Amino acid sequence: MKHIHLPEDRYFGPDPGQKKIAAKLYERVKDKPLVCPHGHVDPRLFSDPDYDWGTPVDLLIIPDHYVFRMLYSQGVPVESLGVPRRDGGPVEKDHRKIWRAFAERFHLFRGTPSGCWLSHELVTVFGVTEKPSAESADRIYDRIAECLASPEFRPRRLFERFRIETLATTDAATDTLEHHKAIRESGWKGNVIPTFRPDAVVNLDAADWAQSVRLLGERSGIAIRGYRDFIAALENRRAFFKSMGASATDHAAVTAHTEILSESEAEAIFGRALAGRATAEDAFRFTGHMLVENARMSVEDGLVMQLHTGSFRNHNQDLYAKFGPDKGADIPVQGEFTRSLRPLLSRFGNDSRLTLVLFTLDETVYSRELAPLAGHYPALKLGPAWWFHDSLNGMMRYREQVMETAGLYNTTGFIDDTRAFPSIPARHDLSRRVDANWIAGLVVRGIVDEEDAEDMIEETAYRLAKRAFKM
Amino acid sequence: MKHIHLPEDRYFGPDPGQKKIAAKLYERVKDKPLVCPHGHVDPRLFSDPDYDWGTPVDLLIIPDHYVFRMLYSQGVPVESLGVPRRDGGPVEKDHRKIWRAFAERFHLFRGTPSGCWLSHELVTVFGVTEKPSAESADRIYDRIAECLASPEFRPRRLFERFRIETLATTDAATDTLEHHKAIRESGWKGNVIPTFRPDAVVNLDAADWAQSVRLLGERSGIAIRGYRDFIAALENRRAFFKSMGASATDHAAVTAHTEILSESEAEAIFGRALAGRATAEDAFRFTGHMLVENARMSVEDGLVMQLHTGSFRNHNQDLYAKFGPDKGADIPVQGEFTRSLRPLLSRFGNDSRLTLVLFTLDETVYSRELAPLAGHYPALKLGPAWWFHDSLNGMMRYREQVMETAGLYNTTGFIDDTRAFPSIPARHDLSRRVDANWIAGLVVRGIVDEEDAEDMIEETAYRLAKRAFKM
Amino acid sequence: MKHIHLPEDRYFGPDPGQKKIAAKLYERVKDKPLVCPHGHVDPRLFSDPDYDWGTPVDLLIIPDHYVFRMLYSQGVPVESLGVPRRDGGPVEKDHRKIWRAFAERFHLFRGTPSGCWLSHELVTVFGVTEKPSAESADRIYDRIAECLASPEFRPRRLFERFRIETLATTDAATDTLEHHKAIRESGWKGNVIPTFRPDAVVNLDAADWAQSVRLLGERSGIAIRGYRDFIAALENRRAFFKSMGASATDHAAVTAHTEILSESEAEAIFGRALAGRATAEDAFRFTGHMLVENARMSVEDGLVMQLHTGSFRNHNQDLYAKFGPDKGADIPVQGEFTRSLRPLLSRFGNDSRLTLVLFTLDETVYSRELAPLAGHYPALKLGPAWWFHDSLNGMMRYREQVMETAGLYNTTGFIDDTRAFPSIPARHDLSRRVDANWIAGLVVRGIVDEEDAEDMIEETAYRLAKRAFKM
Repeated sequence: MKHIHLPEDRYFGPDPGQKKIAAKLYERVKDKPLVCPHGHVDPRLFSDPDYDWGTPVDLLIIPDHYVFRMLYSQGVPVESLGVPRRDGGPVEKDHRKIWRAFAERFHLFRGTPSGCWLSHELVTVFGVTEKPSAESADRIYDRIAECLASPEFRPRRLFERFRIETLATTDAATDTLEHHKAIRESGWKGNVIPTFRPDAVVNLDAADWAQSVRLLGERSGIAIRGYRDFIAALENRRAFFKSMGASATDHAAVTAHTEILSESEAEAIFGRALAGRATAEDAFRFTGHMLVENARMSVEDGLVMQLHTGSFRNHNQDLYAKFGPDKGADIPVQGEFTRSLRPLLSRFGNDSRLTLVLFTLDETVYSRELAPLAGHYPALKLGPAWWFHDSLNGMMRYREQVMETAGLYNTTGFIDDTRAFPSIPARHDLSRRVDANWIAGLVVRGIVDEEDAEDMIEETAYRLAKRAFKM
Repeated sequence: MKHIHLPEDRYFGPDPGQKKIAAKLYERVKDKPLVCPHGHVDPRLFSDPDYDWGTPVDLLIIPDHYVFRMLYSQGVPVESLGVPRRDGGPVEKDHRKIWRAFAERFHLFRGTPSGCWLSHELVTVFGVTEKPSAESADRIYDRIAECLASPEFRPRRLFERFRIETLATTDAATDTLEHHKAIRESGWKGNVIPTFRPDAVVNLDAADWAQSVRLLGERSGIAIRGYRDFIAALENRRAFFKSMGASATDHAAVTAHTEILSESEAEAIFGRALAGRATAEDAFRFTGHMLVENARMSVEDGLVMQLHTGSFRNHNQDLYAKFGPDKGADIPVQGEFTRSLRPLLSRFGNDSRLTLVLFTLDETVYSRELAPLAGHYPALKLGPAWWFHDSLNGMMRYREQVMETAGLYNTTGFIDDTRAFPSIPARHDLSRRVDANWIAGLVVRGIVDEEDAEDMIEETAYRLAKRAFKM
Repeated sequence: MKHIHLPEDRYFGPDPGQKKIAAKLYERVKDKPLVCPHGHVDPRLFSDPDYDWGTPVDLLIIPDHYVFRMLYSQGVPVESLGVPRRDGGPVEKDHRKIWRAFAERFHLFRGTPSGCWLSHELVTVFGVTEKPSAESADRIYDRIAECLASPEFRPRRLFERFRIETLATTDAATDTLEHHKAIRESGWKGNVIPTFRPDAVVNLDAADWAQSVRLLGERSGIAIRGYRDFIAALENRRAFFKSMGASATDHAAVTAHTEILSESEAEAIFGRALAGRATAEDAFRFTGHMLVENARMSVEDGLVMQLHTGSFRNHNQDLYAKFGPDKGADIPVQGEFTRSLRPLLSRFGNDSRLTLVLFTLDETVYSRELAPLAGHYPALKLGPAWWFHDSLNGMMRYREQVMETAGLYNTTGFIDDTRAFPSIPARHDLSRRVDANWIAGLVVRGIVDEEDAEDMIEETAYRLAKRAFKM
């Protein structure tokens, strides 16, 4: 039997001196509660006390585009992995067969973050110690299925076992937050909070924009006949989210372009959009304007503002047509912040009431633009290495390229940003190990002393995130 | 006497644990046959059993723009290094003098890949152990000259001694492949295969385009009066190359721009080109269109498609005027793949019959664009670190920035891409050492186990290249 | 009492073998004289033998935008740090209070170059061994104040104590160089030389351009009525600077754009500028043209030409309005050299009489553009990692991304580029340690031998800078 490789000192560098310090720093924080200020876990997991995970494939393969994109890249059809088609057409239903297809290709994940997370999750969440392979596939499947059927694996129980202190979900501006309400009313003590994400209504070129705006009108009780109504409706929803525990908003855009439209320009563009005549240029400018407007609202209501830019979504046309979004076909493009953010920063960058957290998929801006910006403007903080870069090497590049100029205290600590709930401990653990190793590297090079190091690991593992997100 | 520095454990990291594992992994593959799926070695070396290398300078200096560009950058005139002028004007003829100019500046190559390759080549190919210097220059010259005069140094003998399994050359679409034919007919068993490179006819702004297209017509036996004839002629030549053993095509362009012209647009642009009236815009669009057309042909005939982009060729106007192309004055420019390749990928990216191998001179696209693309599209593979980046640090950056997202199995393994035949073993050896050290780094960090590691080194050293290039 | 952490083997990697070699290499050069070919130290420090430093805050906080930008980024108002306002409005005058605000936030500098330099400077220049904190602030303040009051801390004495061989200042084209003259005439032996920086007159969009050009006319004694007069005046001033000991010029531009205007175009643009009607496009083109003109002058007069590009100056509008330039709000933008420099290089790149030293704030061009350019053109040299990248990691990235292609000998060695005179030894020491560690890394990896290593450290610590700047 081949075992999953999960040594106690994993992810630490090989130098014995550095490893010893890293282990000591890691030991300090490994059992700290998890602060999860941004992610995509479905709140239904916690509103329904009897939530059923389905099969191991329902849990680990079908919803995880990191996993099935890698299999797809090696020629395994998406249909054969059970991913549902938009048109309801036939896909593989035999989950044991799907699991086998995955298990016998486990070598594809060597050296990838998915490989690291899956290994950790299998061992520590499910007690699986066998390495996935064609031979072991069925035994592992059975073991996980058995777990999932037991009451200890209900989401609320895992939430407690994982020591999650706060879990933020991501929710459309038009969401009723009924699941969050149900969680609060259930008497269960887990702290699950919503995050206000208005992309579907502020991006004029979003799919079904008109419908979303109508719904926004309904939800807010404000008939949206023009730009002013729209702003009022957004403010209304932000207040509602805040009353439901939200501490942050989240914004996605292809670029970080910001600009300030005059009231009449904004009104005119919004009017064209309502009439179905907005141009691509209108949408681009309006998105940039609404980033500034949301910053203004954040100054007023105190919600932390997150900005995620740089993804060319749904790059694979055929796959998108057949399976829809979030299928591992979002590909980054080059980013720019220095010129793009200047209009927003000129208005609110010096205002400490704003916390604007920036994320990038283009690592070239770390040392060139983001670190200098965050090392200057009081309103800016840098989110951690994001998405493809949320990996061992990606995190180290982030630390090495950001910290010297931005300083640790202008960053937010780790954010798991996942929809794969059972992978959350694996992700935080990996991050804590990487940070312990990074800080130990500073100690053995004489850059910081051990007292500094101990404080820094507490910051990266717990306090920075809590402070940045006002939790 | 000062010796060339070539320690047994070179290029491995200093940690003793990692070094031990690296050495063990390297040991497994150091004697594997060499698979050389892309390069620029002249097939005449093997068609002529009595090929004469000329002097040490003819072999090691004059044809190696890596070497003479470094000397030139330090103020040594190109003429004084014996590089022939286009106009046949006078250049230095005293090869001993040229060799001395090189030997006394050997320190310029400290820490460069050329320095590594030359050291390996001098020691293991020619048995030279003295470090080049003004003092040792003549002795080394004599030693190499003596070698070159001996029958064991004929190219075919070196080919066998180097354990080359397959060597692909790069050949114009209009090439008769007479040397490949001669090799096949000679009875010699070395596997030297051609590669179809149609740049001179698909890039409308290539020097002597009209002449090349006329020649293409002659070679294919298809009179090229319009776009359809042109496509037919290309298909004809691809079939010929395939019949001569080719497994791949190769395409160079400044950018990765692709687009799909309508039949009538393509016909119109081609018509303007035939009439000598094609614009720069025509050439740009046609090159992008022909990349898609060649992908289509690859889907049909199974030839692996290589795409090399990002070089601003012949940047130095005066040098180009005097000495022509490939004189160390090709300078990279910024690259983009996400948007540029989308038209091609939308048509053929999901088709496993296509293997499109991408190369870049802009390392910023490794983690941002290439790894996410290759980690998704079944038709894509990433070639190794290319040209300036085919170096110790360059290879490590490639591994660290590509592997976590793309996965090892969406890459092609090492490609030497050289015209310097006797440097081939040095290049493969360096690559195998770097990979052994990289994988050992994963082992000591607990990312992969030793079983994984052993499989991975076999892949990087031999199997990936063979599989990707269908050899 | 907590001590400042400044171990003897700081900044060396943890591997014992590498550390030993690094220490040995460092030992060779740690006491070498300091060559300072580019920086912003005020020449008044040396023309006035009784120069008064003011308080510790006048010395270490108020003029150091690296320090106060970090405090500002964490919400400390610039006014409260004593930085003077343009309008002379009120700012904090209690320097002890400012010092405390800094000392109690000393943790913000963990892992930053400012933290490294300050630690070194406090310990070795002022004999302070206590770590700055709220508790130790006053004691440290007193100690530094005591030092500053003593004759041994006069600038000339520090200059000698620091073993500075040559210190170049940076001076406007219109500067009278009276302080340099006073230094020369004082009989003091310190070698302080000017550098010719004509930005204020060659960039048509510079603040107060017309006034600067008028002053240029006065200083040169050439009435500037048109472009030809302007060129003559510049040549006149260059000759004057050269006569005063200058060995170099310095040029700043947002981009590296160069172009060659015809005489009549240049005349027309210059005429529009004199008439106050130059456009942004005019300014952009003229700056590019004047880079080529200055290269031409350098070919003629032998002054080394430095080009610093890539900074978006004064990004923070409010801060600029209140406090003026150089307040930590200059943010880099993306750079490009391959296409941008081609006009200049086509004219003078092959001329060894020109030395053009390039600097970048965009690290992506290191391996992609700058190293290939410098590894080819005889006229090019690369300056060291600049500004934000003049840090432990930044220097390593520079070495790792530049050296393999450019070769060590096409670079200039370390340049401190600082206005903080007492930090100069700290900066050179850090650089020498990083280089010793980098070279030791090459030795333990078997890339260079110890003989090479010893020569290389002498080059990086001393000889390269001296040679490149013709000192």
